Amino acid sequence: MTIVTLSTDFSTGDYACGLMQGVIFSIAPDAKIVDLTHDIPRHNILAGARLLERALPYFPSKTVHVMVIDPGVGTTRRPIAVQLGSQFFVGPDNGLISLVWKKYGRQVVHLNKPQYWLDDVSHIFHGRDVFSPAAAHLAKGVELLDMGEKITDPVLLPEYEPIVSATEIQGKILHIDHFGNLSTNIDALTLQNKVFSIAEVSGTSIHRLVNAFGDCQPGELVALIDSAGYLSICVVNGSAVNRLGVKEGEKVFVRFA
Amino acid sequence: MTIVTLSTDFSTGDYACGLMQGVIFSIAPDAKIVDLTHDIPRHNILAGARLLERALPYFPSKTVHVMVIDPGVGTTRRPIAVQLGSQFFVGPDNGLISLVWKKYGRQVVHLNKPQYWLDDVSHIFHGRDVFSPAAAHLAKGVELLDMGEKITDPVLLPEYEPIVSATEIQGKILHIDHFGNLSTNIDALTLQNKVFSIAEVSGTSIHRLVNAFGDCQPGELVALIDSAGYLSICVVNGSAVNRLGVKEGEKVFVRFA
Amino acid sequence: MTIVTLSTDFSTGDYACGLMQGVIFSIAPDAKIVDLTHDIPRHNILAGARLLERALPYFPSKTVHVMVIDPGVGTTRRPIAVQLGSQFFVGPDNGLISLVWKKYGRQVVHLNKPQYWLDDVSHIFHGRDVFSPAAAHLAKGVELLDMGEKITDPVLLPEYEPIVSATEIQGKILHIDHFGNLSTNIDALTLQNKVFSIAEVSGTSIHRLVNAFGDCQPGELVALIDSAGYLSICVVNGSAVNRLGVKEGEKVFVRFA
Repeated sequence: MTIVTLSTDFSTGDYACGLMQGVIFSIAPDAKIVDLTHDIPRHNILAGARLLERALPYFPSKTVHVMVIDPGVGTTRRPIAVQLGSQFFVGPDNGLISLVWKKYGRQVVHLNKPQYWLDDVSHIFHGRDVFSPAAAHLAKGVELLDMGEKITDPVLLPEYEPIVSATEIQGKILHIDHFGNLSTNIDALTLQNKVFSIAEVSGTSIHRLVNAFGDCQPGELVALIDSAGYLSICVVNGSAVNRLGVKEGEKVFVRFA
Repeated sequence: MTIVTLSTDFSTGDYACGLMQGVIFSIAPDAKIVDLTHDIPRHNILAGARLLERALPYFPSKTVHVMVIDPGVGTTRRPIAVQLGSQFFVGPDNGLISLVWKKYGRQVVHLNKPQYWLDDVSHIFHGRDVFSPAAAHLAKGVELLDMGEKITDPVLLPEYEPIVSATEIQGKILHIDHFGNLSTNIDALTLQNKVFSIAEVSGTSIHRLVNAFGDCQPGELVALIDSAGYLSICVVNGSAVNRLGVKEGEKVFVRFA
Repeated sequence: MTIVTLSTDFSTGDYACGLMQGVIFSIAPDAKIVDLTHDIPRHNILAGARLLERALPYFPSKTVHVMVIDPGVGTTRRPIAVQLGSQFFVGPDNGLISLVWKKYGRQVVHLNKPQYWLDDVSHIFHGRDVFSPAAAHLAKGVELLDMGEKITDPVLLPEYEPIVSATEIQGKILHIDHFGNLSTNIDALTLQNKVFSIAEVSGTSIHRLVNAFGDCQPGELVALIDSAGYLSICVVNGSAVNRLGVKEGEKVFVRFA
């Protein structure tokens, strides 16, 4: 029993995710499939990279994570499989592993052996024709290094780490969730030995760093450490994005007392 | 093989439901996971309670139903596990079991033993850190009474039963589905020995109680017993909520001939 | 281990799909369930028929495909089970098998034996009460011909094949996906020995038939063969439906050089 997770930007209503499951079960009937999400914003590689970072700690050894956020499908971008700790990533070589590579990355292979693909490979749906069969073979126990040529230069996105000085941290909004919460790239480790004074987003100051929404008044604008360990700006029972009118990429400052 | 169902208000596109599956499979690799729905309206405990009532009859013995509609996460509200007939509920103690407690309720425990949680428990995502691991341990066969302290005062919502007189039933709209059908709290049992004459919602009379949409004209406004056994107000191939302009909570009267 | 796929027009957020899983697992605990999609446009039988055609090639032998797009539920329309090659369809007899019957159809039975239904059958949710239990019994190994009376006249939709002349193909838009791509009924086989010159939709000419989006400029309007083998009209990184303002059913012409 091995778990294969699926994450795509196809949207939940698209049957394409279902076809990928058909392909995986045809090759690896004992796999368990988990849909992580199919609602990653279209072509948003950073959103996929963040998801992979947040998912890895909660899945068992040998899990294979298939991610299909693939604007370059049909071009020369490489399909890859990557060992991340005791788990695996399968998908396009476009930066999806950026946020986990430094911590977990072990090996990368270029999936260039057609015996691990479907017989017919379309130009536009490698999720079904290349990544799903490759993931199923990995889940069945084929060795990573048997699945293609070893490479050492996977594509990595630019660093997303915040800039830390003696008096402040400068980070940014990496993601806005469907509740309107603003998730930043400022992590709890960076904050932990400092005395939080004020966070500032788009000219608005946030004075409270709280442990949980339950401690606050409805409508209050607060900062908290989210469930992935990052600073998040939220309106209690409301929408921070609507309150502040900001976008992903907006700078966030944290000042120390 | 035990089934664990997941129901949340996270929205279908949120990866958080996927993380819960990772946690469950890490502890109980043989479980089967069913996503009941992740589109319960945010913080709508009554909607969750109705779902639990409708789901129980269709799941096998030992099924564990995890529900994360949890506005009080991070406060002192208790995490609980409940035996309901031969099945189980795991979630916050906020009234989600209200509509099934009288009929199915057996025992309740306060999930206060950290050995059944993840090592790190965030303040804001008990679905992943407390409820999923507890459900997985239950699915693996841990006894309910071993999982925490027995309690006898679970939170229950106020009664949602209709008011019945000799000439009429007064109920209300509990839910409006995505087709625009209006589901009431008036059940078939309450109706069965009466001769239906007229239903009235927001000043509009409905004269027909039908067996199925197929018997009606498109656009017709009718009453029918829905698949959960409750009186529902519908427009055939259309939207009753758009036709009548009503909201959840609106009163519904049924008069007898 | 047999796969049961579920496709409905209930919408992803509806818990009804979850109840169907409960029913299936209650009867066939070893089944694997794949949600193909629950976002088929309401009552759109053609969309269901196209999905079945696209799914069959990717699922293993014995897979049971349950489709609940069922405007006639509760009327005299027949519930049927159909052998399609080595796989099965279970659903209403309303044309859902139209695009696969000629190629894969073997046998059809009218599901008229109540021992393969739930004990209580509602008038309006045969997905839960008739189709799911029937599919589960098929998945468990009950013979198709034991499940009901053999029939030879399943409902089939009118033909959706394009009209081919020496100089052009006249087809139409059968589906518009969530990216705004226009999928036609003109298949690669019909095109393959011709020299593509121009495609025309709603007075707009498309001059390029490309292999993949990666070869094109953002915003370019192109034709390509989609992953199911049909001609599709697309705007690279954009929306063809927004660009052209067309609807499903609009004629599409392909002219040969």
